[in-house]
Amino acid sequence: MRFIDLTRKKRDGGELSRDEIAWAIRQYTADAIPDYQMSAWLMAALLRGLTRAELAALTEAMLHSGRVLDLSSIPGVKIDKHSTGGVGDKTSLILAPVAAAAGVIVPMISGRGLGHTGGTLDKLESIPGFNVHLSLEQTMRQLAEIGVALIGQTEDIAPADKRLYALRDVTGTVESPNLICASIMSKKLAEGIDGLVLDVKTGSGAFMKSEEEARHLAELMVETGERMGVRTAALLTDMDQPLGYAVGNALEVKECIAVLSGSGPQDLTRLSSLLTAWMLLLGGKVATIEEGEQVFARLIADGSGLRKFHEIVRAQGGDLSGLPRAKNVMPLAAASGGYVEQIDCEKIGIASLVLGGGRERKEDAIDPAVGLILRKKVGDVVRASDTLCEIHYNSEARLAEAVALIESSYRVGSQMPIRRPLVSDVISAGHQFARSAKQES
Amino acid sequence: MRFIDLTRKKRDGGELSRDEIAWAIRQYTADAIPDYQMSAWLMAALLRGLTRAELAALTEAMLHSGRVLDLSSIPGVKIDKHSTGGVGDKTSLILAPVAAAAGVIVPMISGRGLGHTGGTLDKLESIPGFNVHLSLEQTMRQLAEIGVALIGQTEDIAPADKRLYALRDVTGTVESPNLICASIMSKKLAEGIDGLVLDVKTGSGAFMKSEEEARHLAELMVETGERMGVRTAALLTDMDQPLGYAVGNALEVKECIAVLSGSGPQDLTRLSSLLTAWMLLLGGKVATIEEGEQVFARLIADGSGLRKFHEIVRAQGGDLSGLPRAKNVMPLAAASGGYVEQIDCEKIGIASLVLGGGRERKEDAIDPAVGLILRKKVGDVVRASDTLCEIHYNSEARLAEAVALIESSYRVGSQMPIRRPLVSDVISAGHQFARSAKQES
Repeated sequence: MRFIDLTRKKRDGGELSRDEIAWAIRQYTADAIPDYQMSAWLMAALLRGLTRAELAALTEAMLHSGRVLDLSSIPGVKIDKHSTGGVGDKTSLILAPVAAAAGVIVPMISGRGLGHTGGTLDKLESIPGFNVHLSLEQTMRQLAEIGVALIGQTEDIAPADKRLYALRDVTGTVESPNLICASIMSKKLAEGIDGLVLDVKTGSGAFMKSEEEARHLAELMVETGERMGVRTAALLTDMDQPLGYAVGNALEVKECIAVLSGSGPQDLTRLSSLLTAWMLLLGGKVATIEEGEQVFARLIADGSGLRKFHEIVRAQGGDLSGLPRAKNVMPLAAASGGYVEQIDCEKIGIASLVLGGGRERKEDAIDPAVGLILRKKVGDVVRASDTLCEIHYNSEARLAEAVALIESSYRVGSQMPIRRPLVSDVISAGHQFARSAKQES
Repeated sequence: MRFIDLTRKKRDGGELSRDEIAWAIRQYTADAIPDYQMSAWLMAALLRGLTRAELAALTEAMLHSGRVLDLSSIPGVKIDKHSTGGVGDKTSLILAPVAAAAGVIVPMISGRGLGHTGGTLDKLESIPGFNVHLSLEQTMRQLAEIGVALIGQTEDIAPADKRLYALRDVTGTVESPNLICASIMSKKLAEGIDGLVLDVKTGSGAFMKSEEEARHLAELMVETGERMGVRTAALLTDMDQPLGYAVGNALEVKECIAVLSGSGPQDLTRLSSLLTAWMLLLGGKVATIEEGEQVFARLIADGSGLRKFHEIVRAQGGDLSGLPRAKNVMPLAAASGGYVEQIDCEKIGIASLVLGGGRERKEDAIDPAVGLILRKKVGDVVRASDTLCEIHYNSEARLAEAVALIESSYRVGSQMPIRRPLVSDVISAGHQFARSAKQES
């Protein structure tokens, strides 16, 4: 087999076989196909598309390029959630302990912040001592003991994805729904899970700005997951403004504790509840989304979710009493009154990054304490000089830049905006699920 | 400027500016853009296509990646011919001396055999002592003295094309009319010529099997040449069977001498005459193709073409008296009688290569003496045991393989085939040229 012949076939609109794709990914992972050949194939795959069979074969080949966790020794159903990324998107820290408290095993492997979006690992590491680098053995032990582990990706999970992602990033081949799907699903399926809930975000703070793109990606991921024998559902959710009020690592941890204590923001609580309900439904713990949401409410009300969160922090060496705080807090006032018509969510994410809460380059260090607390969100009424947002900062170096970004992200005017639904649709193999969840959004 | 942004733009169907393309080719030639980025761009360019302005900009940038000959110190109009390659395609050795004898300056830079096709340099080097590696100074002197030089590509002509071609060859990005056009035209326009005649071949022995593809490439090349201020015309010619009877380097040189002596094969003589007439027309030496063909006939009849050929050989150190001959000649007989319905021209080319007349790998040495003399061509009547072809060989190592190829390439049957026209169309900026030449084909 010659890789150039596979490239030509894809270039000319043909379909590659499962064996051809498996061979190519094996050869690439073994350094037997050079990057300059792979990048031409990636561009052909982006422009010509992949059939569903090719996508499944690619996902499978990438999944099997490294270690696949075998959680069969741990009793119980294993369910995870994955988000395509957003600003203030912190549901993992809420739903992982609540779902575990409801009896589902949650082996969650997360990533770091990317561009303007935050990452679960960065949030967890704002808790002093919290260790996301558990070995496989430690992870297995923790899952057996408390039913949940929140860890980072290891070198041996889907190494083909690591190399392909780095190559796509520099060759203009990131923006392919098929390649994005294979990248996400190969990593998630390597976790050895039985079910997966996908939170596919759209809006000004998401990577996918249009709902059409998001829906297409969601459909690809659900179909690919189901083909590989993993029950999969995707919720199309709003990321046109930050989720909750807090943006910034330690600030977001505090907000999660508030939700787990029953006093968190409404939108964050609602989305966490829905995602948890879907995890419980896929895990067979409940029969309907409504029932799943009742379980969520009960586990918040009786403190089980919060207790499980503390168990995770303790198991992974964290100390919440030392959660860092920024030295300075500056309120940012509205210049005029009216409705908050719109918030440019990506700019809010970049403002937090500029304060030190995110990375511009991979190797940058993060300041876990800094960030923003929004005081006004879309649809809220503001009067001139009301606080729009609090800025938590340690250095004045780029404060002015952050202020300018926040000011330009808020649009205050006389039009009461139409609120976007928190969940606009659900894609799943079972239509009865989709219907019941849509009513909730 | 970032190359990835140019890749994204092309990928999404946008048009790159002249400056962007010039920048990219400069950076790539200077090793500032890695191959893995360029190959993704090449695939995007292949699948999305290039606008005519982009194609002109790419050709121009590749042309200026190295040295551009300045022939202004040599009086007279400079005209060259380029062929897309075929089997037995030896017109350069005929039309270069004849056009020079007619007063046109011919600074011809040729290539070596590629795949099943022969190359002018290999043919010239079958003449003992013939030196194709003239320096620029030697070339200029020879052009001033005898009006024609037949040389190989030097390192400093269009170096970007050399690198891009090598990359395309291993990444499935060869088969793009735009990229083929830029590759050919950047090299040819670096010769500092005033006019260019293109011989674009189609049929079983050509790289382009369909006339539609060939016509598209011809149109691109003519438009690109004209945009760059070089008068350009393209003839679509037949390569469904070998041109003339000889295939193999020294055998082809002998056949060229026969044409120059007025006793060559009809098809080879006719095509050489037409191509020469076009060179003379573009060079302003004649007013019509008919007049150009009359000049060709006169220069053959009075021996001027042959004398010019001898001048070239002498100037470049060659000795025709030592032209090599193969030790063995084996006639191959027809198994049955009928019409020669078809000859698979690519197989004939490979048969010659297998005997040692061409290269399977770049580094292979060539045996200049070996090859084939066809005795029957398409439309000829054969009787069982008539000789179809003579095999000139030095080693029996792969003789059986060559015999099998030749036998399977001839189809003899009861159907008198419809002969394909030698020239099926002419593409040029001036329609009056096209019309008069079409009548001739």
